[in-house]
Amino acid sequence: VSKVRIDMSISLDGFIAGPNDRPGQELGEGGMQLHEWGLGLKSWRERHGLEGGETGPESDVLEEAFANVGAVVMGRRMFDLAEGPWGDEPPFYNPVFVVTHRPRETLAKKRTTFTFVTDGVESTVEQARAAAGDKDVSISGGAQISQQCLRAGLVDELQLHVVPVLLGGGKRLLDDVGRGELELDRVVDSARVTHLRYRVVK
Amino acid sequence: VSKVRIDMSISLDGFIAGPNDRPGQELGEGGMQLHEWGLGLKSWRERHGLEGGETGPESDVLEEAFANVGAVVMGRRMFDLAEGPWGDEPPFYNPVFVVTHRPRETLAKKRTTFTFVTDGVESTVEQARAAAGDKDVSISGGAQISQQCLRAGLVDELQLHVVPVLLGGGKRLLDDVGRGELELDRVVDSARVTHLRYRVVK
Repeated sequence: VSKVRIDMSISLDGFIAGPNDRPGQELGEGGMQLHEWGLGLKSWRERHGLEGGETGPESDVLEEAFANVGAVVMGRRMFDLAEGPWGDEPPFYNPVFVVTHRPRETLAKKRTTFTFVTDGVESTVEQARAAAGDKDVSISGGAQISQQCLRAGLVDELQLHVVPVLLGGGKRLLDDVGRGELELDRVVDSARVTHLRYRVVK
Repeated sequence: VSKVRIDMSISLDGFIAGPNDRPGQELGEGGMQLHEWGLGLKSWRERHGLEGGETGPESDVLEEAFANVGAVVMGRRMFDLAEGPWGDEPPFYNPVFVVTHRPRETLAKKRTTFTFVTDGVESTVEQARAAAGDKDVSISGGAQISQQCLRAGLVDELQLHVVPVLLGGGKRLLDDVGRGELELDRVVDSARVTHLRYRVVK
């Protein structure tokens, strides 16, 4: 069954990016620490065209996160910050739907096409679902779009890679998302990062 | 070695109490959900003078949290909210040091004595350490006092019992605690709640 998934690395104090994110420092101060756990893993390296890397349960977690995705949803701020750094081959390899108030023509990059949707997050997720077919839709951020999707009850699965750092500020993932219940689906416990996967109860 | 510990149940969105805490609803709206996991466990029941209950790794986690504590630190707001409900036998069985701006005489209850400390959180923790001897100091809340202790670098160990609910608001434990590093010490994975224990890197 096709699912709408949020899958993100998060600091123990709940941030997916540190304070003062800006061009040249897209993840904010300290934010890169949230992603270091993935960089040496085989699945991450494969995804980025590199050989070698560590195999094992953590590499498998990341491989699953990439697998079975048929479309991606993101916010305009994230797109604007990252468009430059991504260059000609953004690492999505899927149709990407950008929630925005400012119309823009569809942008085709190598293996990734960006479609700009101006009529709200529900419509964006719907279009992404249609594009994904029987594959999953990945909400890839930023925080605001993820929160809107959670509040609107659009999310089926939430996986958090909890990194043992405190960022002290920045973009909080689970802020003002209303009340809700989840079901713990799986815990993958590595030496450093804890991977918690939940089903959202609707 | 004697440690200063924070050990709390927390919602996935980071709250240790729901919104609108007040007398009669000390844990805020939905806050009781954070503590339900403990109620059926043998260690919790024993602590509250009840027989029976479930044994196993989760009961052990809770037993450890109670064990080896020699003194408790809390904030005045938490004390004021809970003084009534605790009645004649507050569940601490240890000297409790209350951080406050308003002096009050030491209050002796059955098996628990409350000392009110007016010269700041560092001094309060120091007094608690002296009272605890070679046992640990437990920072039992609320959120503000815990944050002050974290910011001041007074905390050695942080254990979070992550409950799969979203409270959408309330008292956040890890808010404005500055930047920091932790070391993941242990994960106990139960069917519902995930128990994450960290050492604070100083």
